[in-house]
Amino acid sequence: MAMNGVVPGSRAGAAVAPFKMDKAADFANYFCTYAYLYHQKEMLSDRVRMDAYYHAIFRNARHFAGKAVLDVGTGSGILAIWSAQAGARKVYAVEATNMAQQARKLVEANQVGHIVEVIEGSIEDISLPEKVDVIISEWMGYYLIRESMFDSVIHARDRWLKPSGVMYPSNARMWLAPIASHVGEQKNQEFQNAMVDWDYFNQEMNDEYGVDMSVLTTPFLEEQRKYYLQTSLWVSLYPNQVIGAPALVKEIDCHLATIEDISSVKSIFKIPFTKGQTKFCGLAGWFDVHFKGSPIDPADHDVELTTAPMYDQATHWGQQVFVIHPSFDIQDGDVLQGSMEIVRSKQNHRLMDVTITHEVQKSEGSASPPVTSFFYIE
Amino acid sequence: MAMNGVVPGSRAGAAVAPFKMDKAADFANYFCTYAYLYHQKEMLSDRVRMDAYYHAIFRNARHFAGKAVLDVGTGSGILAIWSAQAGARKVYAVEATNMAQQARKLVEANQVGHIVEVIEGSIEDISLPEKVDVIISEWMGYYLIRESMFDSVIHARDRWLKPSGVMYPSNARMWLAPIASHVGEQKNQEFQNAMVDWDYFNQEMNDEYGVDMSVLTTPFLEEQRKYYLQTSLWVSLYPNQVIGAPALVKEIDCHLATIEDISSVKSIFKIPFTKGQTKFCGLAGWFDVHFKGSPIDPADHDVELTTAPMYDQATHWGQQVFVIHPSFDIQDGDVLQGSMEIVRSKQNHRLMDVTITHEVQKSEGSASPPVTSFFYIE
Repeated sequence: MAMNGVVPGSRAGAAVAPFKMDKAADFANYFCTYAYLYHQKEMLSDRVRMDAYYHAIFRNARHFAGKAVLDVGTGSGILAIWSAQAGARKVYAVEATNMAQQARKLVEANQVGHIVEVIEGSIEDISLPEKVDVIISEWMGYYLIRESMFDSVIHARDRWLKPSGVMYPSNARMWLAPIASHVGEQKNQEFQNAMVDWDYFNQEMNDEYGVDMSVLTTPFLEEQRKYYLQTSLWVSLYPNQVIGAPALVKEIDCHLATIEDISSVKSIFKIPFTKGQTKFCGLAGWFDVHFKGSPIDPADHDVELTTAPMYDQATHWGQQVFVIHPSFDIQDGDVLQGSMEIVRSKQNHRLMDVTITHEVQKSEGSASPPVTSFFYIE
Repeated sequence: MAMNGVVPGSRAGAAVAPFKMDKAADFANYFCTYAYLYHQKEMLSDRVRMDAYYHAIFRNARHFAGKAVLDVGTGSGILAIWSAQAGARKVYAVEATNMAQQARKLVEANQVGHIVEVIEGSIEDISLPEKVDVIISEWMGYYLIRESMFDSVIHARDRWLKPSGVMYPSNARMWLAPIASHVGEQKNQEFQNAMVDWDYFNQEMNDEYGVDMSVLTTPFLEEQRKYYLQTSLWVSLYPNQVIGAPALVKEIDCHLATIEDISSVKSIFKIPFTKGQTKFCGLAGWFDVHFKGSPIDPADHDVELTTAPMYDQATHWGQQVFVIHPSFDIQDGDVLQGSMEIVRSKQNHRLMDVTITHEVQKSEGSASPPVTSFFYIE
């Protein structure tokens, strides 16, 4: 259904310029959230996430028994502890924040202190005494790639994984589908309200304080439009809100992917609407990962972790929604065609700039004019 | 009522160690909010704030007419524009964020481009062609000193203000008073709920996933206690919630204060309760500033900007509330006695660590045992 292809005139350049954010700013912007137990608990309370990793490890204990394991971004230490319980000889659990100190306590309290060594530091900076048989990591951000944490996992893989080693997870995919939802209408209303409020404000500044603010109306409108209409939304959708067959927009082989491979997404899609008489008002993105082992050493039991809209298995990732303006009335037989491109933000490589071009091909043959929209995954 | 005095064994050392946060981290943590028009609009919509500065300038136009003025942290440029409209010969409007570009547009659109020069940069880094007659700045954060922006104003004063120059504002004061409010009870309930939820979580982790999390119960409790009970709250209080005569805990002379003077607050207070049969459940802090001119060149018209609890003049600063646990039943004639110390957080000089010791002296002569509580202005 979806075909990967390069979109002409795309924002992504031929090569990815290496970007290294100031370490202190990166900590202030990104890492610091993970130093809170409240945030760790939120992730540990995600049953879908927990079940997937738990089963991936214990149903494939053969990959762990007697082996050396590296847990990249161990957080509370949970994956490292499970790896030890599954029989690992040695587990290196690396964590950049002082959450590492809590992980150390948890490891001791669960009697695996003789197996699990918690190392506080960035994976790019630390040193291990040996290469490992397994790298396990829960690195996925919203819509898979937000946070760009997989860069660190690639670094670890290239430096510390034996040629025969296995990645947990082994594969990742990104999906995109049209949806019907009130969230777009809600955001549009909030945006309109903000602009009406600006008009009153402008008037007051002029009448009360003798200052004409109208030259800032356009910058304010752009800032508010970006905030309300162009920033992707966290939503937890029901399956019946998905109104077209999801398109595969990115596939990642965790054993082979390079940083350049994962630094951008460029995809074209052609999606038949599966519901007529509905309003197409946004595109939802989600991901799945699989634990299949490596090509030369497959898992005994494949396990899937999906964040697709489901009735009873919501995850803390939700889905990312890109609101389409204006919403579009859909009839049976209509087809959505378009392209999506995601590149990293120049100011912050952990955030994303998204370009989506779309048109609706009506069943009687005509097509809506193509619309290009810009979004930000913040 | 209140007397300034050094509390023995205080956290503040004899001298203030200079602290310079990494610039990029400082921008990620602090400055970036000011680059948003939404935030500027919020401050420009604060009628109490705007009226005070407007009157301070235009009722004292003599201080501005034909003079050179420096606006530290000009934001949208409002104070600089008013200074020019009041007759300034030249206004240097310094702004660290790219909001400076909007300020430049606003200056031009209001026909004062020949007077106001907007300079994008940190006041500590930029250079002016002359010393100035007036430094104007709106530098006050929550409870006056949060953000520690006055450091930058002091730097500007010492470098760029003529000996005969005037500071706008000229004086600042911090106040503290006991209050009755439901907010303490609410936060205590949220804290209790978080701990009950932790118990369920702990049980589930053990039963479903074979990991005993109980070694993290205490760190989690401390983290949640800090978040719910020890972090000062933004509240906008009504005067009838203030149940004792406010104590003056800090006075700042903007013409003379050094960075060491303003880096800490150390005060003892004795506050008669003005309401009996009520619950003492927190301490509220607020501030006022005055525009009195300088001792050698006083203002023609003193103007006050206060953030005290008022029925019809709320400000965006609100008040900062430190919740007292447990709440205390107060009778007529009871007196609150205690001390407060505020020092800058070691991790971030723009945030504050607060120590409050208090006891209630009952009208019949007995006193409650003194209680020392730690708070964080985040």
